[in-house]
Amino acid sequence: MDNIVIRYLDHPKLEDPIFIEGLPGIGNVGKLAAEHLKDELKGVKFAEIFSKYFPPQVLVQDDGQVKLVNNEMHYVKRNNGTDLILLTGDYQGLTPEGQYELSDFILKELQKLGVRRVFTLGGYGMGRMVTKPRVLGAATGLELVKEMEKYGVVFSRGEPGAGIVGASGLLLGLGRLYEMNAVCLMGETSGYFVDPKSAQAVLEVLTKYLGIEISFNELETKAKQIDQITSKLKDIEAAPETPDKREDLGYIG
Amino acid sequence: MDNIVIRYLDHPKLEDPIFIEGLPGIGNVGKLAAEHLKDELKGVKFAEIFSKYFPPQVLVQDDGQVKLVNNEMHYVKRNNGTDLILLTGDYQGLTPEGQYELSDFILKELQKLGVRRVFTLGGYGMGRMVTKPRVLGAATGLELVKEMEKYGVVFSRGEPGAGIVGASGLLLGLGRLYEMNAVCLMGETSGYFVDPKSAQAVLEVLTKYLGIEISFNELETKAKQIDQITSKLKDIEAAPETPDKREDLGYIG
Amino acid sequence: MDNIVIRYLDHPKLEDPIFIEGLPGIGNVGKLAAEHLKDELKGVKFAEIFSKYFPPQVLVQDDGQVKLVNNEMHYVKRNNGTDLILLTGDYQGLTPEGQYELSDFILKELQKLGVRRVFTLGGYGMGRMVTKPRVLGAATGLELVKEMEKYGVVFSRGEPGAGIVGASGLLLGLGRLYEMNAVCLMGETSGYFVDPKSAQAVLEVLTKYLGIEISFNELETKAKQIDQITSKLKDIEAAPETPDKREDLGYIG
Amino acid sequence: MDNIVIRYLDHPKLEDPIFIEGLPGIGNVGKLAAEHLKDELKGVKFAEIFSKYFPPQVLVQDDGQVKLVNNEMHYVKRNNGTDLILLTGDYQGLTPEGQYELSDFILKELQKLGVRRVFTLGGYGMGRMVTKPRVLGAATGLELVKEMEKYGVVFSRGEPGAGIVGASGLLLGLGRLYEMNAVCLMGETSGYFVDPKSAQAVLEVLTKYLGIEISFNELETKAKQIDQITSKLKDIEAAPETPDKREDLGYIG
Repeated sequence: MDNIVIRYLDHPKLEDPIFIEGLPGIGNVGKLAAEHLKDELKGVKFAEIFSKYFPPQVLVQDDGQVKLVNNEMHYVKRNNGTDLILLTGDYQGLTPEGQYELSDFILKELQKLGVRRVFTLGGYGMGRMVTKPRVLGAATGLELVKEMEKYGVVFSRGEPGAGIVGASGLLLGLGRLYEMNAVCLMGETSGYFVDPKSAQAVLEVLTKYLGIEISFNELETKAKQIDQITSKLKDIEAAPETPDKREDLGYIG
Repeated sequence: MDNIVIRYLDHPKLEDPIFIEGLPGIGNVGKLAAEHLKDELKGVKFAEIFSKYFPPQVLVQDDGQVKLVNNEMHYVKRNNGTDLILLTGDYQGLTPEGQYELSDFILKELQKLGVRRVFTLGGYGMGRMVTKPRVLGAATGLELVKEMEKYGVVFSRGEPGAGIVGASGLLLGLGRLYEMNAVCLMGETSGYFVDPKSAQAVLEVLTKYLGIEISFNELETKAKQIDQITSKLKDIEAAPETPDKREDLGYIG
Repeated sequence: MDNIVIRYLDHPKLEDPIFIEGLPGIGNVGKLAAEHLKDELKGVKFAEIFSKYFPPQVLVQDDGQVKLVNNEMHYVKRNNGTDLILLTGDYQGLTPEGQYELSDFILKELQKLGVRRVFTLGGYGMGRMVTKPRVLGAATGLELVKEMEKYGVVFSRGEPGAGIVGASGLLLGLGRLYEMNAVCLMGETSGYFVDPKSAQAVLEVLTKYLGIEISFNELETKAKQIDQITSKLKDIEAAPETPDKREDLGYIG
Repeated sequence: MDNIVIRYLDHPKLEDPIFIEGLPGIGNVGKLAAEHLKDELKGVKFAEIFSKYFPPQVLVQDDGQVKLVNNEMHYVKRNNGTDLILLTGDYQGLTPEGQYELSDFILKELQKLGVRRVFTLGGYGMGRMVTKPRVLGAATGLELVKEMEKYGVVFSRGEPGAGIVGASGLLLGLGRLYEMNAVCLMGETSGYFVDPKSAQAVLEVLTKYLGIEISFNELETKAKQIDQITSKLKDIEAAPETPDKREDLGYIG
């Protein structure tokens, strides 16, 4: 089989489309943000990407039908000259090679679709609780840096120190070779939990840039649920007889 | 060498064959079930699959001859319009890529053999002892879900939560791309031991569907042996001076 | 670069050559045996095999020159109708895929060289000290089993239970596809140390089969050195105040 | 995408160029040395190498722009008949296969550029603090060994015992197949810290060979910073109430 297979359900005609990526990662910030945006804007699924760089796994849906793990592209028609393409998915590539191949494959598809501007969404792990997450940025050009600063994106010397790993980084790094104008938006997050609050911070910047207003109710509800869990954990930690259980929680997907 | 090599010992003419897969996995449920069915129905080996996605290993048979680890296909002629093809084997692919390549390769062979209906057999690990194993299902279409429910298969929302990993999942997930009608039957099992009882539960459903009656004596004998070992373990655990030895047991193959 | 590169230093004309493989493995039995045989019979190096399946490593020789890690083939002319080809080397393939590719590559070369009979040499790890190592066997055919039994090779039901992993197994398993008559000779060994005594046991069988007499002085000297180390270890273990140091020793190469 | 991509920014005409490699490794000796030499000689970047054998990562520069992790080639015109090409980079290949492919790729480019002489720079980990680092050598030929001994390079029997792993070794090992005259220069280093002092020792040999004089101020400043950190550590270790923290330090990049 091919290493990567794309199956188009539809071939929409899109005007000067802007591409927005949000896949699983630190705090699941990118995935939460892109899925929320897709839901709010009623994005229409038009392509599925399968790959042997993903885990050999199917998910079982509520109706008993299986779904091979994938990445999916949705479009949003805006009738204002710039449509949107959103990429969401179950996984990123499992290996470095898979990451490179998938990002390169997606960039080739984007070129065919006429995309010239790319946003990648992700989390920036702080290793400590974050009350008011900033949105850090990185970009493929200096003009983009200046443009995004107007929307409150922080470009901070030495942050993120370890660079950006995975699709959110590679779509910029490889995107330069495809002459894409690309920006990575990273919401600060503890890295201990999924973080809808950080996803909201990222979307607030992005929607301002796109000139869109959306509801954040869903994300706020999820954020409250997470807050309840974390505050319970704090109580447990405060109680001297109980061992620390943070390690057992991991990501709450 | 090719990544996957198939060697046909025979080219049987099969009528509308149904394919049944049972490879090593959780509780070895799928492998036990498929091998028992093959033995009871006197399946005839007609193809061997070798691959560099399997371990670099030969097994030494009782007569001193070696056998390169493989997957094998057997056929059963039924003279009722639907013959059977059974896949058993020593291993599944070792890597995600290998899993995808092997499942895709097998589906291509099945297409050539005229297969339109696929059953994959496996275990569903509960993490606790199971007295009366249910048989959970997943399928490639809603009609199949409804059809299998008539045979007692349980399609339960949120189960299995982690999806299905390996050949039993991929043959469904990729099978959709080949327009196969495919069902995965998963017997509940603790996951701590090989589980002939769970394999029997799976086969009871499958044979009812196929309109076959077979003896379960062999599986029942194996189940008793396992029960004896596990009850001894309980005694050992009950004795206060003895450390827990469950971890040392692992799979009993 | 090609996955595997062979560089012929010479193209010897060999009569009905018998191939003998001895690469690093359990107790280094195969490598010790094949290198000893090569030294005693003054084998002439005629081919080097390089591969990206080996570690990315050069060895520095005593004169300061580097040597890329490799496998090497030597020939021995016997003028009795059956010459010998010996394979020794620094490493086996690092991955399952590399193991398969290398064994398949070597078998293809052997076919060109006119080889029809293959011996692979290795160790059989017992997990306990072995005083008088038996030589266990496995073969590609029943006639070979019977033939080798005459030379004292033990074909024992259920041994080795885990099969044979690596080149010594694959050259048999894949060799069947190339219609090679192949035998694996495994010397019993503890698995804790390199084991010249086990290598000698293997060679005693092999040289009897080949009708050769060689000196074992070198192997016996090495065996005495190992014995001295292990008996010192026993003394240390016997002393109550000293912690067990067996784990720190590993292989002595 | 191709496994390795080279992007030429310029096609300089170089006279009989000598190639010098310094990539991350033990004590970062090679990378420190090559980057210092490049800075002192004002090397001009003329090629970038990207690869899926590197991590899927971008670095964020101080101005907010991203840089896909890479290896870079710089040239130095000397107008004395032998120009220089310097290779530096963020990473070496992550896998054995990647190491082989990258070294082979670079050697092919070097052939096109007319390179016949290669120096690879690295560290030789001693596992103990080193006050006056020697510079050990390995080479592709005996004449090179003798030539380099004149410049104080130590060719010591049995050192390095484990051979040379990575690009610094492979460029020699594979370089023989490309008929390159290649030398590896290894500065002794503890292996616990980045070691500018060891890099200086390596460069003192190399610049003598090249007939160049450069300032070592930058490396000496870095060495003092490291010395301050290590001597603080010794104080901490001397204090009985403080646990050993060496393990937490790792490399200081």
